[in-house]
Amino acid sequence: MKKHNFYAGPSILSEYTIKNTADAVLNFADTGLSLLEISHRSKEFTAVIEEAKTLVKELLEVPAGYDVLFLGGGASMQFCMVPYNLLNRKAAYLETGTWAVNAIKEAKLFGEVDVVASSKEANFSYIPKGYTIPDDVDYFHFTSNNTIYGTEMRFDPDVNVPLVADMSSDIFSRPIDVSKYNVIYAGAQKNLAPAGVTIVIVKEDALGHVDRAIPTMLDYRTHIKKGSMFNTPPCLPIYSALQTLKYYKEMGGIKEMEKRDLEKAAILYDAIDSSKIFVGTAAHEDRSIMNVCFVMKEEYKDLESEFIEFASSQGMVGIKGHRSVGGFRASIYNAMPKSSVEALVATMKEFEKKH
Amino acid sequence: MKKHNFYAGPSILSEYTIKNTADAVLNFADTGLSLLEISHRSKEFTAVIEEAKTLVKELLEVPAGYDVLFLGGGASMQFCMVPYNLLNRKAAYLETGTWAVNAIKEAKLFGEVDVVASSKEANFSYIPKGYTIPDDVDYFHFTSNNTIYGTEMRFDPDVNVPLVADMSSDIFSRPIDVSKYNVIYAGAQKNLAPAGVTIVIVKEDALGHVDRAIPTMLDYRTHIKKGSMFNTPPCLPIYSALQTLKYYKEMGGIKEMEKRDLEKAAILYDAIDSSKIFVGTAAHEDRSIMNVCFVMKEEYKDLESEFIEFASSQGMVGIKGHRSVGGFRASIYNAMPKSSVEALVATMKEFEKKH
Repeated sequence: MKKHNFYAGPSILSEYTIKNTADAVLNFADTGLSLLEISHRSKEFTAVIEEAKTLVKELLEVPAGYDVLFLGGGASMQFCMVPYNLLNRKAAYLETGTWAVNAIKEAKLFGEVDVVASSKEANFSYIPKGYTIPDDVDYFHFTSNNTIYGTEMRFDPDVNVPLVADMSSDIFSRPIDVSKYNVIYAGAQKNLAPAGVTIVIVKEDALGHVDRAIPTMLDYRTHIKKGSMFNTPPCLPIYSALQTLKYYKEMGGIKEMEKRDLEKAAILYDAIDSSKIFVGTAAHEDRSIMNVCFVMKEEYKDLESEFIEFASSQGMVGIKGHRSVGGFRASIYNAMPKSSVEALVATMKEFEKKH
Repeated sequence: MKKHNFYAGPSILSEYTIKNTADAVLNFADTGLSLLEISHRSKEFTAVIEEAKTLVKELLEVPAGYDVLFLGGGASMQFCMVPYNLLNRKAAYLETGTWAVNAIKEAKLFGEVDVVASSKEANFSYIPKGYTIPDDVDYFHFTSNNTIYGTEMRFDPDVNVPLVADMSSDIFSRPIDVSKYNVIYAGAQKNLAPAGVTIVIVKEDALGHVDRAIPTMLDYRTHIKKGSMFNTPPCLPIYSALQTLKYYKEMGGIKEMEKRDLEKAAILYDAIDSSKIFVGTAAHEDRSIMNVCFVMKEEYKDLESEFIEFASSQGMVGIKGHRSVGGFRASIYNAMPKSSVEALVATMKEFEKKH
C-alpha cells in the first residue's frame, strides 16, 4: 500500500532527492565510489557544497554580505551558538513553544534575556502580538514555525533591531527578506535533507562584536573562513540538500512552493473546519501551513485512538499529535504531494461517516 | 576499472555497509519509506540506535558505568566538549600532530594545559616518549592515531590519571582497555560510517565535577539522559554505523580486524622498506597501521607527481600525501581489502621497474 508520510521531522523528502541520494550511495558523480566514502576534499564533493550554497543564495535571494553555512550538530546547537556569537549584553526572545523555551534557556547563559511575550499560558496555541522590542537589545529571536503546536509567523517582523530566527520547520516555504536578519538557522530535516546538517545564513558584519572567547567550532567566523569545511562536514545530508534545492529550482522556486503549500494547507484546514468531529487547536490567524494540528471535539474524544488506527490502515504514517497537544498532527512540508493531503481528507471524511 | 579507495577520511566502508545503506535509502526496515525521511522517534529507528549502542559496547567490551553516545558536530566539537565537561583546573595533553594542536587550543579556553611532550620539531614524525604526567591533572589527552603523519599509539598509556583519547582514525582496529578512560571519542568517517556522526564513550562518574555552566548541547549528561535523542540525531550515519558494527561482529570482532590490519600494513611497509625509490616518513616503532605515509627518496623526488598519475591510472584513489608531509599516504582502514593493498604494492613495483 502507498504510504503517506506525515512525520513532523525527519520528514518527507522529494522522490528526486531520495532517488538521487540512493544512486550516489552506490556510485557518486561517476567516481566508481560511494558518496559514503568520498573525501570531502575531493573535487567532486567540493562542487556539491559550492552548488548547494549558491542555490540557497539564489532561491532565498540572499543579499551580499551574508554567508551560507552547512553545520553539524542540529538546530539545538544554534540555541547556544547564536548567543555565543551575538549576545553581548541583552537580547529579546519571543516564547512561542518548546524550541523557543530551549533557545531562551541557552541565551541566559550568555547575557540578559528579555522574553518580550509568551503564549505559554495557552499551551502555545497562538502567536503573541502587540509586544514591544527594547531598542537596546542585540537582536530579537523568534521561532518562525512551531512544529508541536501548529502555529507559524509567516512574515519577517518589522522591528528596530536585527532579527534572528529558527526557521527549522518552514524555511523554503515562503520568500524571506533576509536583509532584516543577522542569523537564520534551520535544521535540515523538514524541508531540505535528512537529519544531520543545519543550514545557517549569517550576516558577516554582525560577527566579532562580543567580548567573550568563543570555542573554534562554535564561532561562525571559523566556518565562514573555511567555507563550511573547517572540519569534515556531514557530506551525505549536504548532497541530499543539494538535490532538494535543485528540485525547488526546477519546480519554479520558493514562490511556487509557497503557492502549493498554501493550497495543500487550505484543503486540510477546510476539511477540519467543516468537520463535525475534528477541530483545529491553533488560533486561526496563526495557523501553520507546515504542521496542521487537530483533535477530536470533546464529545468524540474517545474515538482518537480508533482514528489513528483507521488512518494507519489507510497508509497514513506519523499523524499522532505531540504528547503536549494530543490528537493529531499532519505535517505537510514542501515535498508532500497534494494527493497525500487529499487522501488524508478522504480518510477523515470516511471515518466521520462511520460515526 | 576497479577503484581502490585510499582516502584518509571520509574513507572506504565495507560493501555490506554501502549496500545496506543504499537499500534503506529506498525502503527502510520495510516501512515503505526512505531512511532519509523516517522519524527518529519511530520504533524502527530507535531500534537502530539501541542496537548500534549495544554492539559498540559488545565489540569494545565497554565496562558498566560507561555510556555510548552518537553525536553530531564532528570530533572537532569534542575538542571543546571534553574540557567543557572535564577540565576543572588543569589537564595534560600530548602534542602529536594537527588534531592534538587543535585539541590543546580549545582546552586552553577552559583551564591550565600542560603539554607534557611534543614532536612538533620533527614535523610530528614520531610519538614522544618518556614524558611525565603530573598527578594533579584532571585527565591526560592524546590522539591515538595521527592521520596526517602516519604515527599511532597502539596501546592504552599506563599513567596515574584518567585518559581521554581522540581515536577518530583507529577506533575498532585493536581491543581497548576502556576502563582506563574517562572519554574516548571518534569521528565516524574512518572505521565506522559516513561523515556526520561522532561516537563518544564516556564514564558517567567522570561528569558533574566542573564548576562552570555548560550549554545544554555541549553537556554529555544531556545526551546520556536522552540516549543520544535529546535532539534529532544524524539518522543515516548512525544507520550506516550499525551496518559496519554488524559486519565487524560477523567477521569475528575487533581482534580479527586487528589481525587483518596488521597483515595489510606489513605488506605495504615491507614494500616501502625494500624499495629503492620509496621511503617511509614515520619513525618505525610508531608506524600507523591505518595511514601509511611515504615519499620518494631524495634522488627520485622529481618522480612524485609522475607516480601519482601512474597510480591513478591503475585505479588508486586518494594516495596524495597531506601537504604538510608531501609524497603519498595510503589509508588502509578496516574496510580496505588486502587485494587493494596488494594492487598498490604491484603498482609501486611496476613504477620502480620503469625507473
